[in-house]
Amino acid sequence: METFVMSDQQTAAGELIVVDWGTTNFRAFLLDKNAQIIKQVSAASGVLAVSNGQFEAALNNYISDWCCDKHIPVIMAGMVGSKVGWQDTGYLHCPVSLSKSAQHLVHLDVASSQQKFIVPGFKYQPQHGASDVMRGEEVQVFGALSIIEQEQGVISEAELARSIFCLPGTHSKWACVSKDCNGESVITRFSTHMTGEVFDLVTKHSILSAGLTQQNKEADTDLSQFLHGVSCSQSKGGLLHHLFSARTLQLENKLPEAAVYSYISGLIVGAELHSVIANEPVLEHIYLIGNNRLNNLYSAALLSLGYSSTILNSSQASINGMFAIAKQAELISSIEVTL
Amino acid sequence: METFVMSDQQTAAGELIVVDWGTTNFRAFLLDKNAQIIKQVSAASGVLAVSNGQFEAALNNYISDWCCDKHIPVIMAGMVGSKVGWQDTGYLHCPVSLSKSAQHLVHLDVASSQQKFIVPGFKYQPQHGASDVMRGEEVQVFGALSIIEQEQGVISEAELARSIFCLPGTHSKWACVSKDCNGESVITRFSTHMTGEVFDLVTKHSILSAGLTQQNKEADTDLSQFLHGVSCSQSKGGLLHHLFSARTLQLENKLPEAAVYSYISGLIVGAELHSVIANEPVLEHIYLIGNNRLNNLYSAALLSLGYSSTILNSSQASINGMFAIAKQAELISSIEVTL
Repeated sequence: METFVMSDQQTAAGELIVVDWGTTNFRAFLLDKNAQIIKQVSAASGVLAVSNGQFEAALNNYISDWCCDKHIPVIMAGMVGSKVGWQDTGYLHCPVSLSKSAQHLVHLDVASSQQKFIVPGFKYQPQHGASDVMRGEEVQVFGALSIIEQEQGVISEAELARSIFCLPGTHSKWACVSKDCNGESVITRFSTHMTGEVFDLVTKHSILSAGLTQQNKEADTDLSQFLHGVSCSQSKGGLLHHLFSARTLQLENKLPEAAVYSYISGLIVGAELHSVIANEPVLEHIYLIGNNRLNNLYSAALLSLGYSSTILNSSQASINGMFAIAKQAELISSIEVTL
Repeated sequence: METFVMSDQQTAAGELIVVDWGTTNFRAFLLDKNAQIIKQVSAASGVLAVSNGQFEAALNNYISDWCCDKHIPVIMAGMVGSKVGWQDTGYLHCPVSLSKSAQHLVHLDVASSQQKFIVPGFKYQPQHGASDVMRGEEVQVFGALSIIEQEQGVISEAELARSIFCLPGTHSKWACVSKDCNGESVITRFSTHMTGEVFDLVTKHSILSAGLTQQNKEADTDLSQFLHGVSCSQSKGGLLHHLFSARTLQLENKLPEAAVYSYISGLIVGAELHSVIANEPVLEHIYLIGNNRLNNLYSAALLSLGYSSTILNSSQASINGMFAIAKQAELISSIEVTL
């Protein structure tokens, strides 16, 4: 198990430990009273890597050095709260506000005196069709809202109605936010798109990737070919049809080998954007909450389709979201919190 | 290499050998002057299984017993005419009639005195977007037309305008047919959908198939769950979103393990149907040219969406199409042909 201690920048007092614990990755941050990072650790040690339910031991393995003061509370989000995680925390049904999320924090019954909580997942049940679920992304949306409000001031209800929050990834999430009667932001609905996973399937196992090397896959994205794919995906025919164009363009020597993955990425991301945008008639602006690479690709794709976007780092959004929930739940002792 | 001699039913004189030679399968038929099958052979020995370009030897391996009369001509279609086949026969650009296809038969330059021909592939270049290609399906469409005309009489131009020909499979084809100024049927345009391949990718490698056994995959299709998937695929959100419903329904115990593949099949076939139907406003009737299993599934899916269909066997369509082309090209000696 590889562990990276990423930084140890300050000596301020730790107030909160936030943990983003997903299927394949673990990240923990020791924060001060202003949500500034004092220490952080990350590892490729998601919940699936924890054997025999030894979650507390796994967690302590990473953060025990930070806990000379045993009263620093720990707040966790992600798959750690699923059936395959530490404890199944269930789902809160949308619409859900940050304060409702804080009220329903699940307090783990553990041996140590250190308080540990998991944020429940969210579920959205549309009037027709299957329900949708998320774990971890809900805190990122709340965190993104807090970052935006810190930087730009409060977002108006009218602005929210013309905006959507996109969390690109293996299973991308798209969340709509509005204000409730108390003026609090609530996540009203969301949908999942298996964009990253389908890209992975197609580029690993399909006829479209036959003969291509790992080098092709690892090459930097060819933005021009990516946008060509996005453009193709907006024409009629649907994803199952558009994918075949990666084949015919190769047959006609119109798609260089080095650009095949970029083009397919454009086709699949473009299909996702097309599906979402078609159902959001008043949409103008997208808040992107992902890693740098995905944020930049999605931003370029959206611009090519006439939409503006704001880029937010998903890791920072996760930290800020959990901090905001912990603050709301009064887990942070200091009253000087300024976030 | 496994070879199955399927039948040896009659003793009539052989007039034509037709060969459907695809990427992974080989099928040959000795036909009499009325296109009735005298002998047939099939093997899992597609063009990719032929080493060092030894196509003539591979062919003779299957049909040499039939060729005491060396003057029986051979007509072939499918990937045998591609870059990875016996000879790259190029593409005819749509619109293409059967007689044009016959005029452009490629005569192979071979050592033996037996005449051998390959039907060129078809290409469709839309005004906007990538081109589309097919090899082998074009003869099936012509063959389907000849079967329909034998059974129901000539299809009118008005009927053709409200119909489409669907060849379901790994890479499904959808072809539109109309009449040219001579009253001859022409394939005007077509599109490819990677339906079968994406189903295979998703059910072999994705999170949706995690924990499912080969037994699940090999179970008979649960028609009710298949149609449930078709229905879900017609709602807004797009395929990348709808696929995730196979996950949430499993999480909620609303999708039995034994039915997961049926439901996913419905989602993906439904996405294909949705994409095609949305672009064909006057469409009423679909001619299905596939194997029995796919024909029945597509027919049920189409019925659930309000469309009628006629089922045609793809192997028979292939035989009839090559026979009709050979007849048009005057490769058949007898003048008593009644097809």
